[in-house]
Amino acid sequence: MNEISKLRTLLQKNAVDAYLVPMRDEWGCEYVPAQNRRLEYITGFTGSSGFAVIAKDKAAFFTDGRYTLQAAMEVDEGEFEIFDQSEKTDGEWLQENFKKNSKIGYDAKLFSVLRIKNLKECLDEKGIKLVELEKNLIDEIWDKRPAPVETKAFVLDKKFSGTTAGEKIKQITAKMKGDYMLITSAESICWLLNIRANDLDHTPVLLCYAILNKKGEVYIYGNSKALQKIEDKIKADVFTRDVKEISTDLKLYKDKKIELDPAITPMRFKNILEKHQAEIIETHDICLEGRSIKNEAEIEGLRAAHIRDGVAMVKFLFWLESNARKGQDEISVANRLEEFRRENDNYFSLSFDTIAGWNANGAIVHYRASEESKAAIKGDGILLLDSGAQYFDGTTDITRTIAVGKVSAEQKKNFTLVLKGHIAIARQKFLKGASGCNLDVLARQFLWNEGLDFKHGTGHGVGYFLNVHEGPHGITRINNVPLKAGMVISNEPGYYKQGEYGIRIESLVLVNEAEVNGFYEFETLTKAPIDRTLIDKKMLDKQETDWLDNYHEDIYKCVAPLLNKEEKEWLKKATEKL
Amino acid sequence: MNEISKLRTLLQKNAVDAYLVPMRDEWGCEYVPAQNRRLEYITGFTGSSGFAVIAKDKAAFFTDGRYTLQAAMEVDEGEFEIFDQSEKTDGEWLQENFKKNSKIGYDAKLFSVLRIKNLKECLDEKGIKLVELEKNLIDEIWDKRPAPVETKAFVLDKKFSGTTAGEKIKQITAKMKGDYMLITSAESICWLLNIRANDLDHTPVLLCYAILNKKGEVYIYGNSKALQKIEDKIKADVFTRDVKEISTDLKLYKDKKIELDPAITPMRFKNILEKHQAEIIETHDICLEGRSIKNEAEIEGLRAAHIRDGVAMVKFLFWLESNARKGQDEISVANRLEEFRRENDNYFSLSFDTIAGWNANGAIVHYRASEESKAAIKGDGILLLDSGAQYFDGTTDITRTIAVGKVSAEQKKNFTLVLKGHIAIARQKFLKGASGCNLDVLARQFLWNEGLDFKHGTGHGVGYFLNVHEGPHGITRINNVPLKAGMVISNEPGYYKQGEYGIRIESLVLVNEAEVNGFYEFETLTKAPIDRTLIDKKMLDKQETDWLDNYHEDIYKCVAPLLNKEEKEWLKKATEKL
Repeated sequence: MNEISKLRTLLQKNAVDAYLVPMRDEWGCEYVPAQNRRLEYITGFTGSSGFAVIAKDKAAFFTDGRYTLQAAMEVDEGEFEIFDQSEKTDGEWLQENFKKNSKIGYDAKLFSVLRIKNLKECLDEKGIKLVELEKNLIDEIWDKRPAPVETKAFVLDKKFSGTTAGEKIKQITAKMKGDYMLITSAESICWLLNIRANDLDHTPVLLCYAILNKKGEVYIYGNSKALQKIEDKIKADVFTRDVKEISTDLKLYKDKKIELDPAITPMRFKNILEKHQAEIIETHDICLEGRSIKNEAEIEGLRAAHIRDGVAMVKFLFWLESNARKGQDEISVANRLEEFRRENDNYFSLSFDTIAGWNANGAIVHYRASEESKAAIKGDGILLLDSGAQYFDGTTDITRTIAVGKVSAEQKKNFTLVLKGHIAIARQKFLKGASGCNLDVLARQFLWNEGLDFKHGTGHGVGYFLNVHEGPHGITRINNVPLKAGMVISNEPGYYKQGEYGIRIESLVLVNEAEVNGFYEFETLTKAPIDRTLIDKKMLDKQETDWLDNYHEDIYKCVAPLLNKEEKEWLKKATEKL
Repeated sequence: MNEISKLRTLLQKNAVDAYLVPMRDEWGCEYVPAQNRRLEYITGFTGSSGFAVIAKDKAAFFTDGRYTLQAAMEVDEGEFEIFDQSEKTDGEWLQENFKKNSKIGYDAKLFSVLRIKNLKECLDEKGIKLVELEKNLIDEIWDKRPAPVETKAFVLDKKFSGTTAGEKIKQITAKMKGDYMLITSAESICWLLNIRANDLDHTPVLLCYAILNKKGEVYIYGNSKALQKIEDKIKADVFTRDVKEISTDLKLYKDKKIELDPAITPMRFKNILEKHQAEIIETHDICLEGRSIKNEAEIEGLRAAHIRDGVAMVKFLFWLESNARKGQDEISVANRLEEFRRENDNYFSLSFDTIAGWNANGAIVHYRASEESKAAIKGDGILLLDSGAQYFDGTTDITRTIAVGKVSAEQKKNFTLVLKGHIAIARQKFLKGASGCNLDVLARQFLWNEGLDFKHGTGHGVGYFLNVHEGPHGITRINNVPLKAGMVISNEPGYYKQGEYGIRIESLVLVNEAEVNGFYEFETLTKAPIDRTLIDKKMLDKQETDWLDNYHEDIYKCVAPLLNKEEKEWLKKATEKL
């Protein structure tokens, strides 16, 4: 009997007509660890965005436009009907396929309060019922489920964090609206307590939940073995509880005011609190704002980390120039770059899987080369390389687009349009109160005037030795969170010509006070040259040329002292005035 | 006994502790006619944005930053404490000044459903009660209240409206969610039925309410004398009711689905409907989208109206060049401009009071010259002139900033920064789906990079022979309504140096499909030259210079044939290539 048949047997046993299988796990982080990739187990889908509904006699799989092709290859179309969520949502499909009083089972650990609220509103229209099942039905049938990775938690040195956990707790309790705060974002807890671990690929967190009270006491629910070892070093009133105890402990908040963020908190926790008559206050995770605004030590760390990361990039670019066409492929160049990064002080891990896309593969925005699909670098073309690292003193994320051999006039023109957008963001001073949705067009204006666009945001917030993608801010058409001094964000316009090539120029920028009162400006943290051979100089005006020359001059000043003679000579040429 | 004492006697009689006096009247239009300027009657305030609370032993007046100075001059500070709403809202003041179970009286005709919802939420926190009073307490004490203006309603010719009322009703009923729709925006009703009148200064509406049903029948509640005369010409199933009858008629919707827009509809109407158990559906006024997207006939009308309006502007500018310093002042030049407009075909009225600000007065964004305050035009400087007209075939709104005598290098620099922003908007192609909050920065980017800004939106939507300010779209930092083909919007960046001079360059633009699929572009409708003597040519790049040269060439082509020989020669020079 295959997995889907087994699951269908359980539907009957649990008296539900269908079961919901989301990508999200009980931790709700961006990266889902192997032991929690339930959606992959039941559908075979390995992408990062998907959702399945399995009913007795049918099943549906939903993903977004980036992954519809991949889903068609990985998901069995004999079992699942595959949908692009922008064309049909799971809610609409459920409305169409189930009658009044049908029961849809779900595991409330795996859904945020907000997601269930929205889904429930949609199903209520048809009288379809959502039924919380105690046990996860995938877990029930999952043989050979991978074990969780053993964590090695540690406390981040104050020279890296800049503030003690006690000081951060004081800031947060001052803003609390309840007497208690349930924090379910592992990143927020790790930030608050200055702890890190290796529970997830790419994001150096310890998977845990926490409850903070007005007095500043923190109860952490996680791997108690790992936590007990570091409890004394956290420098705050921290009490370790095993993760299993949270369901019992949440029953004790009768008549207590407890705040939670419905966009993050698992529905299961709210259900327990409600059942036991806690007074729930729905707010935004206030640690998220703390995470987004970097303190002085963090900013110093970020500047230093970016210089070291720039050194790795420059060494790599120098190496690539003579080796690109000597039998390299997308995976081998990514590995070589990783080696250069590993040599850096304070290196911890990559901050995401490197994207190396040669020519046509570069046009696939979420491309990941595999041993089967990888392209060899040969002939003329463009290599798009998006990579980054976690250092103890900051997280990096950089994309450079590199010419190998000859490039066409069209490629140069489009690269220069992207570069003009990148520079427009980098050099724009902006009024306090402005948000990403106000700035986004600066990156697109030159492309738009040629009838071109790129189908992703211009920038995402970046954590500090935490998630490389974290809000609340971002440079997109809809993000209306005002930018503030100390925020770090990517500046990454691109252009993608399907089947031919991809262009993206990404640096991280820091929001600083400008000289004129009431204004902010960006400081570009990333320190790696932009490929001059791809630039059509005539298309740049004097201010743009000056910006690029100054940027390159700064890179040489910071990075050259850390290079050998040959690398230094290469960098000299790569950063010459245009 | 003065007015405030009389009002206080009524507080006691009506058993309330305070009374709310808003600027808004029962029609909710931008311009409040004399007979409904209750706030002005009780406070003396003549501006366009304010709110008063009068209690037994204290009173407060609230306005926004544009009007705090004016309020201090007009409102008796012995009676009223004056607040800038951005520093203290009326809700906060009420919370601070009243105890639990205090009763705050209000006239539900004068407040939108949304406004009362928000205020109630705020007062509920302190247990303060809002009490609807049947009679308006200002009306009770208002001796010598002006009579409403007698209306002369008329039906707009189909050559101007492009569509019959019947066709518009069909479009709207197809989108209705209820069986009935209560429309309380006079502009929306006038648009829907192709009727106009002269009930308000500047906005050619007939003040009325309407109820539309799914069958397409429209009951209009207004001045029945005026309405009966045109009822037969409307070409739709229209039934005239006197405005007094609406309160009775609304009692008849028990169990009926009736939709209304809470942002516009008077609270009083919702109260009646609720009391009589109608099933209320809250939506957005769907006529507003219809109004915002101009049809082909309207677009042709707008183009023609703007050429005629441009002729008036050019004749005026030519006249001004030789007459500015011959004893003119801010009012005399505004009057001269009005005379030129009156000569135009299809002229109906001005679309707002002309703003003519000489030097320092130009820096006051909402400046209106009075016989007492008007400045004489003498010496060197800058005249800011913001004006427009209502024509049967469209509404215009234009600002030109005109050098008189010598101007400084600083003035030229700042004018050119504003011009670069104006051009950036005018020539930007943009992806479908983009909204004003995405484009606003294009107008500000050059100013921001110099640490300068202007404290108003970049653009407002414009009605068609209706209100010169109407949404739902706009180019501001927060407006997220996607722009669509057929929308008209102003493009009006500025710069204001307090106590010295003001700069604004405003043209109306129309959203058109661009050549490339998926993109829109703007067409500048306004046809009047931009003062070359204020431009620092070195600051413009080639694309900007080309845009201006093409714009000026187009003006000459459209306007010159309608001028006399001397005016034509003047325009030739004013529109020469830079």
